[in-house]
Amino acid sequence: MTETRPYVDWKLVNDFMIDVFEAYGVPREDAAICADVLLESDRRGIESHGCNRFKPIYLDRIKLGTLKPVTEIEIVKETPTTVVIDAHDGMGMVASHKMMTMLIEKARTYGLAGGAIMNSTHYGIAGYWTGMAEKAGMIGISGTNARPSVAPTFGVEPMMGTNPLTWTIPTDEPFPFNFDCATSTIQNGKIEFYERMGKDTPAGLVVNREGETMTESGKILKDMRRGQAALLPLGGLGEETGGYKGYGFTTIVEIMSSALCGGPFMKALNGVNEDGSPKLYHLGHFFFVINPEFFMGLETFKKTAGEICRALRASAKAPGQDRIYTAGEKEYEAWLERKDKGVPVGESIQKEFIQLRDELGLDYHFPFED
Amino acid sequence: MTETRPYVDWKLVNDFMIDVFEAYGVPREDAAICADVLLESDRRGIESHGCNRFKPIYLDRIKLGTLKPVTEIEIVKETPTTVVIDAHDGMGMVASHKMMTMLIEKARTYGLAGGAIMNSTHYGIAGYWTGMAEKAGMIGISGTNARPSVAPTFGVEPMMGTNPLTWTIPTDEPFPFNFDCATSTIQNGKIEFYERMGKDTPAGLVVNREGETMTESGKILKDMRRGQAALLPLGGLGEETGGYKGYGFTTIVEIMSSALCGGPFMKALNGVNEDGSPKLYHLGHFFFVINPEFFMGLETFKKTAGEICRALRASAKAPGQDRIYTAGEKEYEAWLERKDKGVPVGESIQKEFIQLRDELGLDYHFPFED
Repeated sequence: MTETRPYVDWKLVNDFMIDVFEAYGVPREDAAICADVLLESDRRGIESHGCNRFKPIYLDRIKLGTLKPVTEIEIVKETPTTVVIDAHDGMGMVASHKMMTMLIEKARTYGLAGGAIMNSTHYGIAGYWTGMAEKAGMIGISGTNARPSVAPTFGVEPMMGTNPLTWTIPTDEPFPFNFDCATSTIQNGKIEFYERMGKDTPAGLVVNREGETMTESGKILKDMRRGQAALLPLGGLGEETGGYKGYGFTTIVEIMSSALCGGPFMKALNGVNEDGSPKLYHLGHFFFVINPEFFMGLETFKKTAGEICRALRASAKAPGQDRIYTAGEKEYEAWLERKDKGVPVGESIQKEFIQLRDELGLDYHFPFED
Repeated sequence: MTETRPYVDWKLVNDFMIDVFEAYGVPREDAAICADVLLESDRRGIESHGCNRFKPIYLDRIKLGTLKPVTEIEIVKETPTTVVIDAHDGMGMVASHKMMTMLIEKARTYGLAGGAIMNSTHYGIAGYWTGMAEKAGMIGISGTNARPSVAPTFGVEPMMGTNPLTWTIPTDEPFPFNFDCATSTIQNGKIEFYERMGKDTPAGLVVNREGETMTESGKILKDMRRGQAALLPLGGLGEETGGYKGYGFTTIVEIMSSALCGGPFMKALNGVNEDGSPKLYHLGHFFFVINPEFFMGLETFKKTAGEICRALRASAKAPGQDRIYTAGEKEYEAWLERKDKGVPVGESIQKEFIQLRDELGLDYHFPFED
C-alpha cells in the first residue's frame, strides 16, 4: 500500500454518507440533512462529532434498533411562537432540522420562537441548529440532555449529561460568535484523546467516589464506564473556584431539555436496561430563536457584537500568548484551512468507509485507496 | 451604648428606605420598587447586594449626579413580543420593573417575550427580575453588563463585567430553581470579604499582568483599581480547565446586554472620564420570559424540574459532605431563618441609617439604638 491521503473531497464524502444512510433505511432527503450535520462538524475542525461518528453513533445504532432510520415527526403542540415535537426515536438531526425551520419562520413573524423535542436521539453538534438561526440573521440558543456523566457540586455520582448550552450570535465579521461546548469542564472524548496520547488528564476535571480528582486517563475511562467516576461541572471541584456555577448551567440544560417537552431525564437516559441490554435513548432538546429586527435591528446588533469580539482579541495578552480568540474563530480558521483540501479522514474511518462501501456494494473509489 | 441588636423588622427597614429614597427625589412608587429589590437580596442572604448598597451605590450616586432619581422611561420600540427601553440614566430597578411587568403580560399572550434596556444603572440582583417571571409561573432569564473587570482567556486586561447570566425556573417545591451569579469565577465583593477575614484569595481566580494568578487579597484589590489585575472567567486560567467556556458565557452576556438595545459596552462602562471625573454608567440589561403553558404545561414543567432537583440532592455525596444543594436552596433557607428575625443590619449600615435619618429629620427609631 502506498502512502495514505487523508483528505477527501467534501462532495465525495457527502454523497457517500447520503448513499450509505439511504441504504440503512434513512429517506434520501433526511440522509442529506444528517450528512450535512456530520460534515459541518468536520468543517469546523470538531473531529469528535464528525464523520468519525457516522458508523458507531448512527449506523450501528440503526442496526441495533436503538435509532429508527425513518423519523416519524409528530407535532405534539404548536402555537404561533412555540413547537413541541415527539421524534419517536427517529433521527434527532432530522427532527431538529424540522424544528429549526419552523422556529426561524415563527421568529420572522413574531420576533421570538422556542421549541422542544422529546424521544429524540443524538442531534450532532448543537451549534448546527443555532447556526441555522444565525444564517437567517437571528440568534440561536440550544441545549440537549445526554447520558449521565456529570456529578453535582459536593457529589460523586454521574447524574447529568455534559449538556451543552450553545449560542450562535450574528456579527459583522466573516464568521459568527459561536459558543458550542459542554457545561462540564471536559468531555469523554477529550479524556480518550489524552489516553491515546499517553497523557494524564489535568487535575480538577474528574472526581472519583472518594471525592478526589483523578488524573490517570485510562483508569478514568474504565471507572466512568462503571459509574465510579464522574466529570466535574465547569469551575471544578467544590465551591471555591465556582464549581457550583458550572453545576447550575448543567442543571439548567437538564431541566430545559426535559421539562418543556415532558420527556425523561438523568438516569433514565443511560441507554441500558437493568439487564444490560440496550435501551432507546429518549433524549430531549430545546431551541430558542431571537430575531434582532424586533429589537434595534440586525445591523446594529451585528456591529456591536463584532466590535466586542474585535476589542477582546485586541486586548492585552498574557506573556507568551500570541492571540486571544473569540468563540467560533478557531472553527472558522479550521474551515479556511480545509475547504480546498477536503475532509480529513483518519485511518480508522478509512477502514469503516471501505467496509461500508463493500458491504453495500456502492460504487465509490476513495483517494486514500490509491 | 448597650449591646447592638442587628436584626431589624423587615417593614421598618422597608418603610425607612422608601422615605429616604423619596427624600432623595425618587417618586414614592419607584422608591417602593427599589426598597423591595434591595431587601429581596437580604431576604435571600445575599448581603453583598442588599441594604449595604443603599447608600454607596444608590444614594451617593444620586448626590453625585451619576444616577437620576426620577426615571424617565422611554419605550424606544415595542412589538407584541419585544420591548426596548431607554432608561435615561434613571433608576435601573424602576426601568427593569416596568420591563418585566410588560414582558410577563406579553408572554401570557404570546408564550415568549424579550426586552433590552439601555442607558440604565445598577439593577440590583438579576434574580429579582427573573423571579418576577417565576412568580407568574414562567421562566425568567436576565443578564447585565457592568464595569470591566474580567479578562478573556489568554488575556490579562479587564475587558468585561462580571456579567451574570441568571435563570429562575419554576418547580413544584416551596422554592424555585434560582441560578443567579456572575460568569466570572469570583466577584470583587468576595475578595473584599477575604481581605476583611485576613485570608488569601484562592489561586486561579485573579490574573496579573504577568499572566499569573494572584492570591494576596489586599494586593488584588489595589491592583484591580489600577487595572493591573483582572478576574478570570469561570473555568479559570487558560484553556485546560475550561476557562474559555466561562469566557464564552461572559461574552454572550456582554453582547446581549448592549447589541439588542444598541447601547455602549466594555471600556465605555468604566464610570470615569479620562480626567478621572465620574461619568454616567449607561449600563445595558436583557430579559427573556418563557411561558411553559405554551409547551407541555406549567404543572408538567414544575414536576420535572422539581424531580431533577430532588434527584440531584439525593445523589451520592463526596465523603465529608452532608448535603448537595440545588440553586436557590440556600437562599430559601436564608429566608426561613430570617423571616421572623428581621433584616441583619451590620454596624456600618447602622451608622449609615442613623446618619441618613438625622440628616433628613425622619421620625424613625431603630432597635440597634437601644
